[in-house]
Amino acid sequence: MHSHPDTALMSRAIELAGEGGAAGDYRLGALVVGADGIVAEAHTDLAATNDPTAHAEILAIRRASAKLNTRYLHGCFLYTTLEPCPMCTSAAIWAKASGIVFGATLDDALERGGEHRDGQFYSWRQINIKSRYVVERGTPLLELHEAFMRTECLTLLPAPR
Amino acid sequence: MHSHPDTALMSRAIELAGEGGAAGDYRLGALVVGADGIVAEAHTDLAATNDPTAHAEILAIRRASAKLNTRYLHGCFLYTTLEPCPMCTSAAIWAKASGIVFGATLDDALERGGEHRDGQFYSWRQINIKSRYVVERGTPLLELHEAFMRTECLTLLPAPR
Repeated sequence: MHSHPDTALMSRAIELAGEGGAAGDYRLGALVVGADGIVAEAHTDLAATNDPTAHAEILAIRRASAKLNTRYLHGCFLYTTLEPCPMCTSAAIWAKASGIVFGATLDDALERGGEHRDGQFYSWRQINIKSRYVVERGTPLLELHEAFMRTECLTLLPAPR
Repeated sequence: MHSHPDTALMSRAIELAGEGGAAGDYRLGALVVGADGIVAEAHTDLAATNDPTAHAEILAIRRASAKLNTRYLHGCFLYTTLEPCPMCTSAAIWAKASGIVFGATLDDALERGGEHRDGQFYSWRQINIKSRYVVERGTPLLELHEAFMRTECLTLLPAPR
């Protein structure tokens, strides 16, 4: 049983983000953890899948639901290296997760527009709505841990402009 | 080539919503249409898939991307029978769709809490954020047609409380 936020869990999410970067995608990692430990893990996988919804958080949530054979992740927490966008925050609400723990913040990401890597420009677009704004307008009301291990997670983002 | 909003396209989305209801799910339908016609269709499919992200709009977007083999739906419009939630609106933004056309509104849905059907209570939870709020905070800026054929789409929702 973990108490949240948990350093080892976010460290694992950071590893996953690195795997996403090594695979040529955005360096973003996420996992879903339940009472008995990690249920599902993912890195953002947009390029390889051609799926515009393949953010790390969406993939982790979908994999956790598939594994647990339910669309409700009661008691589960979503860990993610960057503040989840409205799509991903909403998915956690629809899944009735218990909480979200995120690392770097939307404001951090907004300060960093993108990066050139492997001859490609990665735009790191953001939808300018904070996760808390979404959480507070949904039910159930998820527990939200913001900017946890932010310094470590910041290293995954492009350098500031 | 369609001009938007288009009555025949929304009528098709309403049919899809009915198919979702007949399958024991929420009566919500969506489609993605491009320059050459409908690319992908879906009804909400939460119960059968156990996937908390299986809203009609997400499924239509994912299917359209799979069919077109790209995560960018440039030039495409998303039609949906109910104002899309922040998850689905955001997915359309990430996909760089050209626009969204929706029928019944979030306010309509908020007035209708849920319904008993086939011995089950369908809660029709809402996240209280309008699609326009999300659209205006993302890039590209999608064209938004609100409350199109609202009267027809309203018949898909539970009766007012």
